[in-house]
Amino acid sequence: MLFKNITVLDENFDIQKNMYVGTKEDKIAYIGKTEPKEDFGDVFDGTNKVLLPGFVNAHTHSPMTLLRGYAENLPLSRWLNEKVFPFEDRLNCDRAYYGTALSIAEMLSSGTTSFSDMYFFQDGVLRAVKDAHAKTNFSRSIVSFDDTPFLSDERVKEALEAVEKYHNTENGKIKIDMCLHAEYTNTYSMIKQFGEYTRGKGLVNHIHVSETKSEHEECKKKYGKTPTELFYEAGVLDTPTVFAHCVWIEDCDREILKEKGATVAHCPASNLKLGSGVCDIYSLLKMGVNLAIGTDSAASNNGLDSFREMYLAVLLPKGVNGQADIVSPKEIIKAATYGGAAAQCRFDTGIIKEGFKADLCVIDTDKPSLYPDFDILNNIVYSAEKSDVVLTMVDGEVLYNNGVFTSIDIERIGFEVNKIVKEVVSEVQNGN
Amino acid sequence: MLFKNITVLDENFDIQKNMYVGTKEDKIAYIGKTEPKEDFGDVFDGTNKVLLPGFVNAHTHSPMTLLRGYAENLPLSRWLNEKVFPFEDRLNCDRAYYGTALSIAEMLSSGTTSFSDMYFFQDGVLRAVKDAHAKTNFSRSIVSFDDTPFLSDERVKEALEAVEKYHNTENGKIKIDMCLHAEYTNTYSMIKQFGEYTRGKGLVNHIHVSETKSEHEECKKKYGKTPTELFYEAGVLDTPTVFAHCVWIEDCDREILKEKGATVAHCPASNLKLGSGVCDIYSLLKMGVNLAIGTDSAASNNGLDSFREMYLAVLLPKGVNGQADIVSPKEIIKAATYGGAAAQCRFDTGIIKEGFKADLCVIDTDKPSLYPDFDILNNIVYSAEKSDVVLTMVDGEVLYNNGVFTSIDIERIGFEVNKIVKEVVSEVQNGN
Repeated sequence: MLFKNITVLDENFDIQKNMYVGTKEDKIAYIGKTEPKEDFGDVFDGTNKVLLPGFVNAHTHSPMTLLRGYAENLPLSRWLNEKVFPFEDRLNCDRAYYGTALSIAEMLSSGTTSFSDMYFFQDGVLRAVKDAHAKTNFSRSIVSFDDTPFLSDERVKEALEAVEKYHNTENGKIKIDMCLHAEYTNTYSMIKQFGEYTRGKGLVNHIHVSETKSEHEECKKKYGKTPTELFYEAGVLDTPTVFAHCVWIEDCDREILKEKGATVAHCPASNLKLGSGVCDIYSLLKMGVNLAIGTDSAASNNGLDSFREMYLAVLLPKGVNGQADIVSPKEIIKAATYGGAAAQCRFDTGIIKEGFKADLCVIDTDKPSLYPDFDILNNIVYSAEKSDVVLTMVDGEVLYNNGVFTSIDIERIGFEVNKIVKEVVSEVQNGN
Repeated sequence: MLFKNITVLDENFDIQKNMYVGTKEDKIAYIGKTEPKEDFGDVFDGTNKVLLPGFVNAHTHSPMTLLRGYAENLPLSRWLNEKVFPFEDRLNCDRAYYGTALSIAEMLSSGTTSFSDMYFFQDGVLRAVKDAHAKTNFSRSIVSFDDTPFLSDERVKEALEAVEKYHNTENGKIKIDMCLHAEYTNTYSMIKQFGEYTRGKGLVNHIHVSETKSEHEECKKKYGKTPTELFYEAGVLDTPTVFAHCVWIEDCDREILKEKGATVAHCPASNLKLGSGVCDIYSLLKMGVNLAIGTDSAASNNGLDSFREMYLAVLLPKGVNGQADIVSPKEIIKAATYGGAAAQCRFDTGIIKEGFKADLCVIDTDKPSLYPDFDILNNIVYSAEKSDVVLTMVDGEVLYNNGVFTSIDIERIGFEVNKIVKEVVSEVQNGN
């Protein structure tokens, strides 16, 4: 495809007007001020449009979109025990398939081209990813309550099966990460074995870290160390690692993250909604820690919308620190795109640059809410919303175009989702 | 118009499915489970649609949409002195007309049916309101630096001219409020005279209060009183009053607001973006203070979108207080509709109830981001966005319908706005 006369967020995350961008197979093959001689096939008229790298949702649980609006206005423990766990107990691969398909639809329609998913029912989730031609780093989360040897643990076995069966499939669109659910849901033995096992395997570790104050403080009481220090000492961070949340991490933790090149997946909406707090991304950015942005699941957000997360991410540090001039839209859109791609160890993704993957989205700026156009990047981060996305492309393939999904039968998915949630709610009520 | 088979947010702010709602002239004339016998004219098919009271934007400066993206990432004093004031110095009635028209378009497209506007250039602003068939409580803001007698002050004269010329015109759609810009921009003499003059006049007072910490603390140093205490003692609160922001008010202030029946216009996005902080609406709601929601101007937000403000309003108290179960979507949507109407002393507006003004908006819920529909009210507050609005009606007249403005030539407004901002920027640069 050739994007013609389009405004582009360039590789330095600056705005360039009247550009030509050509894609060939799964890659960006041409960027220039002049029309290329080569024929790139379909031509897209870029008048009043902005071409962005696709967003990477760096932390979500895609099947949980089935629970959107199901567990509301409850403190975390009641939210989990009274609502989320009983619902999830009734899920299976087939049901997870539809939840994931719905999530992918919502993400594609908001310009998200890749997501880091942490869940179970891998055959269901990844069938949905494959059917939708989507891109994900999936991980099967490991929890442990005893000292079972690593390779005998049922969850570890599933996680390694996922690696075996799916890692780097679909032209590399599907990758498998390794996931410890969290410090507080694992034994020290498991954390230690996880650190040792994952070292040098070439996979990414994805872990919930210091999401709540009590989790962070309890770990310090139990081990005399923060969760980050514990993972560091267990060797978990010797492998490229994504820590989701990090609301309560301290200076010593940020030093470790910086030293080990780990990523923080910032989930501002979920952290607010569950009453967890606000992650201090200003300090992380100042230190040069890689920042990515995640939505968490639709059960605690309640959407999978990178625009809303960017808006919260750019506003909250200013409000919380009382400083209007900290954290720029450029830093945030970079976190929401390349920061996430780097977190997924997809270093050829997330930037509009020749040779990079053609994971792109197009914003229509011809809207009252985007006039005037003093500063297009500011408008995108502060004023745009997901409905301003008119096209989303993954690996050079258009998956969303002017409200139409090319790889997802959204009517059927909507129908099945509503059927499934009615069934599950009835099963929960009847104790089946 | 007859809305048929539509889901309705009823007068108790509960969801009712499969309803019929008929409007006649400027009012809601029928609400029922069955089709009315009377002919209400056009029929609107409510399948997968939700009818809400229109939103009331309780605090904005509509011409400032011209500055969207113009003054970014600066601390408040530089934002004002280096960018906003030099730009505003070049505005006039004609330019304010186009800024206001653009703001009205954005508000109508996001379901906002009335707004409380604080600015100057009243003939320009109110011509735009009239041309767009829109609804506003406008106030000309008063600032003072000496002890000029009230009625001799030029700004007061303009404010009173506005009352004389525009109050209760356009079938009551235009009302004029009285506005003190703030404590720190007025002399004590002016505050006192304002309190005395406005008492019993039947108008609404609209004032910026305790937006920043320094403003609040400086007032205490100067007077030994908080701004709220000062306004209280000056008799300003003997008149129905809207205090915008209230980020730094204290318990004593909240007691006063409750006692006097005043409204807080909560502007969460602007308060975050300018580094002012977070208003404690949880305490206000607990005490029963009337809460309304405002966007402030697009220069500090950067949009006029009630959905985003609701989302911030419902999330922030949970995150800041560390409690997931405080402040409900119902409380927030009530604040964004009836709370704002009450702030405007429009007590026949903001609720879907027979005899009330037909200020309504319709949301299309047939979207991936709004499946499943466990809890429609939750979905609206947590997951919907302005583009989900498909129809907006003010005083029974459809002003926005499926992307089309019936009273605004949006192409011309967009063209003029872009022309004006280019002119102004050039004038600022050349010192003209």
